[in-house]
Amino acid sequence: MSEPRNIALLLSYDGTAYHGWQRQRDLPTVQQTLEDALQSILKHRVSVTGCGRTDAGVHAEYYVANFRTSARIPAERLPFALNSRLPSDVAVARAWETVKEFHATFSCVRKEYTYRILNSEIRDPLRRNHAWWYPQSLDLERMRAAARQFVGTHDFAAVRSTGTDIKSTVRTIFAFDIYEKGGIIEMVVAANGFLYNMVRAMVGTLVYVAIGKLEPPDVRKILETRRRSLAGPTVPPHGLYMSGVHYDI
Amino acid sequence: MSEPRNIALLLSYDGTAYHGWQRQRDLPTVQQTLEDALQSILKHRVSVTGCGRTDAGVHAEYYVANFRTSARIPAERLPFALNSRLPSDVAVARAWETVKEFHATFSCVRKEYTYRILNSEIRDPLRRNHAWWYPQSLDLERMRAAARQFVGTHDFAAVRSTGTDIKSTVRTIFAFDIYEKGGIIEMVVAANGFLYNMVRAMVGTLVYVAIGKLEPPDVRKILETRRRSLAGPTVPPHGLYMSGVHYDI
Repeated sequence: MSEPRNIALLLSYDGTAYHGWQRQRDLPTVQQTLEDALQSILKHRVSVTGCGRTDAGVHAEYYVANFRTSARIPAERLPFALNSRLPSDVAVARAWETVKEFHATFSCVRKEYTYRILNSEIRDPLRRNHAWWYPQSLDLERMRAAARQFVGTHDFAAVRSTGTDIKSTVRTIFAFDIYEKGGIIEMVVAANGFLYNMVRAMVGTLVYVAIGKLEPPDVRKILETRRRSLAGPTVPPHGLYMSGVHYDI
Repeated sequence: MSEPRNIALLLSYDGTAYHGWQRQRDLPTVQQTLEDALQSILKHRVSVTGCGRTDAGVHAEYYVANFRTSARIPAERLPFALNSRLPSDVAVARAWETVKEFHATFSCVRKEYTYRILNSEIRDPLRRNHAWWYPQSLDLERMRAAARQFVGTHDFAAVRSTGTDIKSTVRTIFAFDIYEKGGIIEMVVAANGFLYNMVRAMVGTLVYVAIGKLEPPDVRKILETRRRSLAGPTVPPHGLYMSGVHYDI
């Protein structure tokens, strides 16, 4: 028997109806949904590896996964076959055969998340699941000054939720940019990896800076203490999107 | 007893979960939802008049309604009071006391609808309820040339669905503009009024022109025949938004 092929998928999903990416007994997850669709095509059990464990309600505009199969279906036929089986809140944009060492989690060298805040007095029914509504006016320049303090290699223990066992809480943030378009504040952060709830805790901290509860230089000091209680709150999941992931293989 | 006050509301809603604007026995509608919220504030039965009967799945970015009350609550306090009672898919942006003759339907002199098409090879899970996905490439210049044929005063019987009894099928279209931004084709049409399903039938006709099933000059000829079967199909409701309404009082 020949060695199984390693196939990568690029997908996007609306996380509203899911209990996150990772398979859970009796709860709808994106991983399970994708595995079910693949199994109906490939006629064998499939285990899909994702590039990250998004939480319940978190979305993905650009998410990479991989799986192994000995089935002979050409990779380029998979998106159409999958999309006709997947529900309308998950879509596969591309599929390609990759090297056998490729692993969607461990081969990743850079990940990007985008957080969207609807900063307006009135909530927007059409974006209720896709941006966090925050009515109080936010000072973008203060947020940008604070975001710059996160950039670089630091211990991010102060802006994560505990729960998962990890070796190190040191990560490198490459960029943390903030834009405004059409009433939406868009915060784009790229790093070599993120701790659990780290983006949402950093955004909560930037909001505290924006409204004057913290000052931009406090960010660096809070990181140094490693104390979660000093940083801002963990903001809601429905404003968060996985928006990029890069591999060097 | 003094004459009741006439209060106007500006609202927006996501139509996905509703069977349209108009109250229907045992089905969720936007009108009923708004009336329930108003009744819990005003402590009397309220009948709300809307600026149009949007269908199931159709959205509103800008929708005006009015109602009468003898309650003394200041109009400017209503948005907050209503929004705390309304579900997250309906929001009231503004409320104001208006003249007693004002009627959200009959006082209207200009209405605007926007139709959004996601014109991309792959569907987008994040916009599945908010734009119609049409994968085949659409020729915008052909669509614009055809849209211009609809502008003016014409008999629009060929692009409506029957069902409602109306005196005349003549309407005046003031403008019909087509833009593209970020993979979304946005078609904005303004008129002194619209027949039932008229926007969706006009958009279906423009799509037929875009893909070569009709030629731009056919539009005028089809209107002259008054025959619905010669025009394009009625496109799905979830790409349609009420986006503007104007009054001269």
